[in-house]
Amino acid sequence: MIRRQFLPQIPYGTKDFLPKEATHKRVMENSLAALFARWGYDEVVTPAFEYLETLNAGAGDGVAQGTFKFFDRNNNLLALRSDMTTPIARVAATRLKESNPPLRLFYLANVFRHEQAQAGRQCEFYQAGVELLGTGGPAADAEVVALAVEALAEAGLDNFKIGLGQVEFINGLMGESSLTPEDQQKIKHHLVARDLVGLGEALTVSGLGADAQRLIRHIPLWQGDDAVIQEAYGQVKNEVSRSALENLADIKRLLAGYGLERYIRFDLGLFRDLDYYTGMVFEAYTPGLGFPLCGGGRYDTMVAAFGIDCPATGFAFGIERVLLALERQGIDLPDPAKDVYIGWREGALPAAIAEATRRRQQGQAVELALEPATREAAKADQVAKGYARLLYVGDDSHVDES
Amino acid sequence: MIRRQFLPQIPYGTKDFLPKEATHKRVMENSLAALFARWGYDEVVTPAFEYLETLNAGAGDGVAQGTFKFFDRNNNLLALRSDMTTPIARVAATRLKESNPPLRLFYLANVFRHEQAQAGRQCEFYQAGVELLGTGGPAADAEVVALAVEALAEAGLDNFKIGLGQVEFINGLMGESSLTPEDQQKIKHHLVARDLVGLGEALTVSGLGADAQRLIRHIPLWQGDDAVIQEAYGQVKNEVSRSALENLADIKRLLAGYGLERYIRFDLGLFRDLDYYTGMVFEAYTPGLGFPLCGGGRYDTMVAAFGIDCPATGFAFGIERVLLALERQGIDLPDPAKDVYIGWREGALPAAIAEATRRRQQGQAVELALEPATREAAKADQVAKGYARLLYVGDDSHVDES
Repeated sequence: MIRRQFLPQIPYGTKDFLPKEATHKRVMENSLAALFARWGYDEVVTPAFEYLETLNAGAGDGVAQGTFKFFDRNNNLLALRSDMTTPIARVAATRLKESNPPLRLFYLANVFRHEQAQAGRQCEFYQAGVELLGTGGPAADAEVVALAVEALAEAGLDNFKIGLGQVEFINGLMGESSLTPEDQQKIKHHLVARDLVGLGEALTVSGLGADAQRLIRHIPLWQGDDAVIQEAYGQVKNEVSRSALENLADIKRLLAGYGLERYIRFDLGLFRDLDYYTGMVFEAYTPGLGFPLCGGGRYDTMVAAFGIDCPATGFAFGIERVLLALERQGIDLPDPAKDVYIGWREGALPAAIAEATRRRQQGQAVELALEPATREAAKADQVAKGYARLLYVGDDSHVDES
Repeated sequence: MIRRQFLPQIPYGTKDFLPKEATHKRVMENSLAALFARWGYDEVVTPAFEYLETLNAGAGDGVAQGTFKFFDRNNNLLALRSDMTTPIARVAATRLKESNPPLRLFYLANVFRHEQAQAGRQCEFYQAGVELLGTGGPAADAEVVALAVEALAEAGLDNFKIGLGQVEFINGLMGESSLTPEDQQKIKHHLVARDLVGLGEALTVSGLGADAQRLIRHIPLWQGDDAVIQEAYGQVKNEVSRSALENLADIKRLLAGYGLERYIRFDLGLFRDLDYYTGMVFEAYTPGLGFPLCGGGRYDTMVAAFGIDCPATGFAFGIERVLLALERQGIDLPDPAKDVYIGWREGALPAAIAEATRRRQQGQAVELALEPATREAAKADQVAKGYARLLYVGDDSHVDES
């Protein structure tokens, strides 16, 4: 076998989780899995890659640019999954035929996006999320927002806010305008990107009246409590936009029932992806992190790509982002347990093995030395390896603990 | 956005884990993670793909044929990891520079092999495993074999055996023979494949004496208890083969100290991969499953590919294979908890939310209906969804449990 020696690197935009981080990740993922189960959600695990056609059907052809693509042996184009919503929709489309809606599913998975890496945005990253499929209405939306809040709290965060928007609010305003579809798209694009300069320019040349322009320019500024909804309601006339505002008020009222009102902040300028979402959308923010911790919303048309008309709502939560927020806020997660290091003198290995076995059966985390050592050398190893106690097996297999 | 409707399929050799299976997988993985931690092993998580060069450096260029390969944007060749030993060796080579050997690492990960799928062998599959790096000698080998036994027991199996072999046994016989390297390779190849017909033919034309031929032909039959070692020892003269037998006897003695002797069966015809392993090798078998549950051994030369000379030993455990064995042996794993289904009449949603919140805080798994329903309809939903109890919120928010 040919051996080459080289400095090993890992691919761009990926990372190793070393023991502390890996433990934090496992602790967080398990507490989220337990939380989701308490809310009646069932876990599913899907393949790391799908046919590219499946991902395109779910999320639109635009997804192809951002995926890692490759061929199978029959020249079918595969791609690493770029989110979990499409695979979950694929699973649900099959399972919904067999079970009563609604279907509540959760996942903990790595997803892959072929793009510029930056803090909080790697090419491979880990998500936790839920999808609530087969039901429309504010009760379902309130449930997923409430569960997102509980998930962030379960992870250890308290200092965060949920921005809550509704994509139908702008759709209603565009629908009642005299704008061409192309001009509507331009304005929506600037709103999604929160590009106020571009928005102003597009409005100036749009031919819209001054009142309509002022209203649309004001949308990104409508952020805050119930007064925002009331004010916006007074200024829009069309039924679609008004229904969107009523929907947000309903969701907020239900969230008050969950005791989570204090985390919620309306944000009428929040749209996420207008090609994908069809109702309520939300994102969670925490101070000191320039990107959302989690995001989601209602997507009532996507599952139809898999042959079943099915309203749906859900969210995804960035595991690394939440770990980063906890670290920046000085919130500790448990490190790997290191209870006992067992050293032994020449000839005492069988006695040391018996001690290790006994302690492990008691649930202690025990590292057993593999070579004989003096008591002093074993003490140094115990300290260097971060174990709380040394157990030394010496003459006549006498066990000495310190 | 273009929507197409089609029957969604998943790529060849992959599978979805639906809720019961996903729960079984999570329960098993977490109990294994806890076990490995009790033995002083630390978890690491590595990227799903590596530079192909990294995988080749670790496992040899042959690995390339069996991987899913693709390019990054700088035209570097990437590949989905086909095992975890090479990525762990890459991590260890960096970390060993900073910490005292030995280094004990574990992983729970999906790996990918581009080959014919069959029962127990998918193109994407899940492994649990440990690597014990930086130490030679039988104490390390006995520890990983003991941990493999404990892992299978922790997973719920009892009816299994460990076959224990040593690749230096055949290397010693080949080394003392007058065979050309090519003829040695042929004979080893037949032994690894347990191809007795091919072995017989290769020996017949080898020019070896009748005694040597008979000895080599006998190797696959040397399976059993300590008598096998004694018998083989009496028939080989070279020091390499004799040391290999002494090593196996030492490992077995230490395993007796762990109280695990009853699982061990010597198998001098077990070699796994002669290009990779350098000492003890082992596999675990259970009745009714035509492939090993786990396998591993000592690989003292591989980590050198990453710039550090480092003896190493370890094993990998097939999660799906163990789940399949448990199922075939009728051993149950816990299903998702389904405690309480909450139904409610029109207007009682806030009271139902309050009940759900209270019960979830107590740790119960609670599904909340999202639409009002009669008591009878709610009862039917509770039963259909598999919840143990119904809690119905009726007139005046009276809560009624059944």
